[in-house]
Amino acid sequence: MNTAELVELAQQLRVDSVRASDAAGSGHPTSSMSAADLMAVLLANHFRYDFERPDHPGNDRFVLSKGHASPLLYAAYKAAGAIDDAELLTFRKQDSRLEGHPTPRRLPWVETATGSLGQGLPVGVGIALAGKRLDHSNYRVWVLCGDSELAEGSVWEAAEHAAYENLDNLTAIFDVNRLGQRGPTRHGHDLDAYARRFQAFGWHTIEVDGHDVDAVDRAYGEAISTTGQPTAIIARTLKGKGVAAVQDREGLHGKPLPEADEAIAELGGPREVRVQVHEPPAARMLHAVRSGHVELPRWDKGDEVATRNAYGQALTALGTGRGDVVALDGEVGDSTRAEFFAKEHPERYFECYIAEQQMVATAVGLATRGWVPYAATFAAFLTRAYDFVRMAAVSGAGLNLVGSHSGVAIGQDGPSQMGLEDLAMMRSVHGSTVLYPCDANQTARLVAAMADCEGIRYLRTSRGESTVIYGPDEEFTVGGSKVLRSSPDDRLTLVAAGVTVPEALAAAEALERDGIRARVIDLYSVKPVDRDTLRRAAEETGCLVTVEDHHEEGGIGDAVLDAFLDGRPVPRLVRLAVRTMPGSASPEEQLRAAGIDAEAIAAAGKLLVEEAVVR
Amino acid sequence: MNTAELVELAQQLRVDSVRASDAAGSGHPTSSMSAADLMAVLLANHFRYDFERPDHPGNDRFVLSKGHASPLLYAAYKAAGAIDDAELLTFRKQDSRLEGHPTPRRLPWVETATGSLGQGLPVGVGIALAGKRLDHSNYRVWVLCGDSELAEGSVWEAAEHAAYENLDNLTAIFDVNRLGQRGPTRHGHDLDAYARRFQAFGWHTIEVDGHDVDAVDRAYGEAISTTGQPTAIIARTLKGKGVAAVQDREGLHGKPLPEADEAIAELGGPREVRVQVHEPPAARMLHAVRSGHVELPRWDKGDEVATRNAYGQALTALGTGRGDVVALDGEVGDSTRAEFFAKEHPERYFECYIAEQQMVATAVGLATRGWVPYAATFAAFLTRAYDFVRMAAVSGAGLNLVGSHSGVAIGQDGPSQMGLEDLAMMRSVHGSTVLYPCDANQTARLVAAMADCEGIRYLRTSRGESTVIYGPDEEFTVGGSKVLRSSPDDRLTLVAAGVTVPEALAAAEALERDGIRARVIDLYSVKPVDRDTLRRAAEETGCLVTVEDHHEEGGIGDAVLDAFLDGRPVPRLVRLAVRTMPGSASPEEQLRAAGIDAEAIAAAGKLLVEEAVVR
Repeated sequence: MNTAELVELAQQLRVDSVRASDAAGSGHPTSSMSAADLMAVLLANHFRYDFERPDHPGNDRFVLSKGHASPLLYAAYKAAGAIDDAELLTFRKQDSRLEGHPTPRRLPWVETATGSLGQGLPVGVGIALAGKRLDHSNYRVWVLCGDSELAEGSVWEAAEHAAYENLDNLTAIFDVNRLGQRGPTRHGHDLDAYARRFQAFGWHTIEVDGHDVDAVDRAYGEAISTTGQPTAIIARTLKGKGVAAVQDREGLHGKPLPEADEAIAELGGPREVRVQVHEPPAARMLHAVRSGHVELPRWDKGDEVATRNAYGQALTALGTGRGDVVALDGEVGDSTRAEFFAKEHPERYFECYIAEQQMVATAVGLATRGWVPYAATFAAFLTRAYDFVRMAAVSGAGLNLVGSHSGVAIGQDGPSQMGLEDLAMMRSVHGSTVLYPCDANQTARLVAAMADCEGIRYLRTSRGESTVIYGPDEEFTVGGSKVLRSSPDDRLTLVAAGVTVPEALAAAEALERDGIRARVIDLYSVKPVDRDTLRRAAEETGCLVTVEDHHEEGGIGDAVLDAFLDGRPVPRLVRLAVRTMPGSASPEEQLRAAGIDAEAIAAAGKLLVEEAVVR
Repeated sequence: MNTAELVELAQQLRVDSVRASDAAGSGHPTSSMSAADLMAVLLANHFRYDFERPDHPGNDRFVLSKGHASPLLYAAYKAAGAIDDAELLTFRKQDSRLEGHPTPRRLPWVETATGSLGQGLPVGVGIALAGKRLDHSNYRVWVLCGDSELAEGSVWEAAEHAAYENLDNLTAIFDVNRLGQRGPTRHGHDLDAYARRFQAFGWHTIEVDGHDVDAVDRAYGEAISTTGQPTAIIARTLKGKGVAAVQDREGLHGKPLPEADEAIAELGGPREVRVQVHEPPAARMLHAVRSGHVELPRWDKGDEVATRNAYGQALTALGTGRGDVVALDGEVGDSTRAEFFAKEHPERYFECYIAEQQMVATAVGLATRGWVPYAATFAAFLTRAYDFVRMAAVSGAGLNLVGSHSGVAIGQDGPSQMGLEDLAMMRSVHGSTVLYPCDANQTARLVAAMADCEGIRYLRTSRGESTVIYGPDEEFTVGGSKVLRSSPDDRLTLVAAGVTVPEALAAAEALERDGIRARVIDLYSVKPVDRDTLRRAAEETGCLVTVEDHHEEGGIGDAVLDAFLDGRPVPRLVRLAVRTMPGSASPEEQLRAAGIDAEAIAAAGKLLVEEAVVR
């Protein structure tokens, strides 16, 4: 498109942003208007995309990091012919595909859900990495960011990662409209402030008047021709550009324009500009082998193996059998044992350094391109990326997250390194799967099984060795459990997972010496939970003791409750969990101090049974 | 100390680091050895601190951001006479004050718990801000960081914040030993790479040989004399410096030295250097009025007020009555209503921009100096700072966190903006308090009450207006609840909080029309939970329905379980919560779609009662 056409297109995008927000009675038209020229030039002259084939392997990828500017995105879809005007006006209404913030659950052209600021660029880095290192395709990744969100540290994790990986297929477009939600940003219209920072991080930078379509056009061209480093286009813009009543004014964030009809008139009224978006170049769809034969590692009963080791070995084997499996780690691969995979499959291993947000974002980006990522760090440090996990669930992204060094059982390192909130954190994510194996063979099976689950899947591993109690051919289904000990005379049930399984087994033996038979359930699938087995145990034994190496809220004790929320009678319950703040001590001392070792379990079980008898 | 003395001191710190780790059988001596000269020079020549009066208002503040180098810290404490050699050798043993990673719960000289990398500098920024803006004291803040942790985005949030606030009382010392846990860092010994970045962010930078004690001494002097901006001392060091077998070698992170005796000999053997640390300058302890009369806002029953508005007004009133209350916000003060406080008490308001990690870290830093911080953003975006909240709990820090825009009830903005995991996240934090008010008067009372709780306190507010149902003189205790409706004929209990309280009341009325009397409990204190009232309701009505605007895991339904974990009989339970991924819709449509509105509650209650009768 030439200059005049681009200007017309940009005005149409503004008009449609105003119209959509006006119809909705909410939304962010002023944030859309600042970026309308940036969007128009990209869409008309540089973006290569087949809207009828969003899975075309040659398609460029666009991420609206400032997700609240969704009216602009939807206006662009309309200009490209992907949606019609009637649909545009369903914006923010129930069941509309056009949500307040875009999500790929509903729209095939959206790569990742945005709306939590500072996430689009990190995910864009992941997509660009896929293009460079896995897909070997020439697609370009374009990320439109706001200026406010540059305060998020995650943006700088992304900046570091992108430059380090020489992602010249990535262009970040910063819509510097100087106004955040509440008022002016730190740097206002000081484009140099942003340019200095990105240059220092190794980016090519271009400062531009974001309302000069020719200058913007040249900037995109320069970005495309820049090699060896990512490009940041830093564009000076005005929020609400084009409508005097709102342009560059505070207090108008996230509100429809007060006088929409007048604004539309001021913008020159509705238009019917239609963009013929460039076709993507021919590209080969890489068919990574999804279902080759996987030869999982095998251990003998009685072997002493840490489940984190089993994770590393199983993942390596899975990677050998399946070409679509990739691994990421936050510079602790020697601890999580992701390094086993790195040694065997270096081309599919992503070192993310100590930047857990970027690690999860990279995994999300790789997943958008069809790869099956396993991302690992200490369970405790996954808390760093919780907002990214939450947003990945909004996206419907398929991620495997692995947290090692869970619980007080890590011993001497102390509470900063102990994952004690991870089960709660992961369980409360929509549609998640939460697994917590107790031995090596179980771990291996679950590592393989989780690849085929939907959504966010979490595997919790342990630092110390544990005795292998299952044979290598034992099968474990997600949503299942294992009854390790049972008799018709059971008077209570001990429910454990991970490191508390051997403790529960020892407690059952101690109780039997006291004449109390106890059932033991290995609840390796914390979510979904095996309701039937728990319900049966409750009916047959009447009493349940849950025991977990986790804080008492949101973990295994709460998970068990899921089995008893259908209004039927509930068994008597006692929950053993970590209630105090641990310090340094040996693993055995920690379990004892927390009251989750065999002795504590046996004591709790005995008391419960005796109380039940008395009453 | 002169050069020779400094060298001797540094060698002693190395020797004691090796000895402590050797005695423990674990720990990070090589990470301690790289920074020994940096620590020696600081301790002997620049740090001003009274170890007998850690609360001295003039004390400098030291933060070991690379908390795993705790042996170095403890060796320094010994050199300063704060601990003796026998205690040094208790390192990492059960009940020792000398944990694997330092925590202020046990050691009075530790400002904040570290061990999750990238947190020390952000908290240091908070302490420096307190010095500049609140304490008006001349203390200096020194933060010793590793190089690996500079990959964390939180470091760059801190870098931005410190420069923007002209924190020339803050010095960051980067121990660039080029080796992370797993291997080389991204930038190795390229000091310029770090200097460029910090300069771009507005810092004064000094590159130095970290083993040249005179050069380090000059660098500290330059940092002290630098005005108007924070200083970063970027020191080239060698991991394991001083022992050839481990110096600058990979694979030795977090391990005691293989031949400790030989290493100690190579370092010149144990010494008995004792440092006379400089006295802090005289300083006035600012006595902010903690307990002035607080005149909370009052609303009449029937008023329509959003609880977020009540938060803003109550916090403002609290700030008027109490001089120690400060407020922070993540650039959404117009939404959380923290802006009310900002207008009235600008000198005690901290705009943190869109950087939630730094917001929480600033709050932690302010709390270390005795201030009572209230930090607010959308509930959804507090997930961004979860690791900081977790670590604040390890510190035992007193923080008030406020999450607005909770649940699907926000309406059109969609899932990215909805706090649906926040209750689970906050409940699972050790020692936390979780509050969720349903009306304005209740909110005001809880805002005031939470200031005097211990640890992490979380208040969940709502976007939309709700009807005031409590009079302004009604009292609400943390750990309590309110029975809003009850009769001797109640056949079930509805347990609600926040936006589901009016829905539960309406459901109870509908049920009564069907001849079923229902008790209604407002469970505004989600943690601790009112066990007695819940237990009594269970015994008297037999059936409980919980209803919450939150995912089903870890929220109010799970919290209720706390009342029934003592082995006594458990009532029949049904939990209503958000089970699907919401899109955009009106608040009313959202509650209906999620199945947590009055109609859904009434239907569930009826079914439960009828099933109970049948069985």
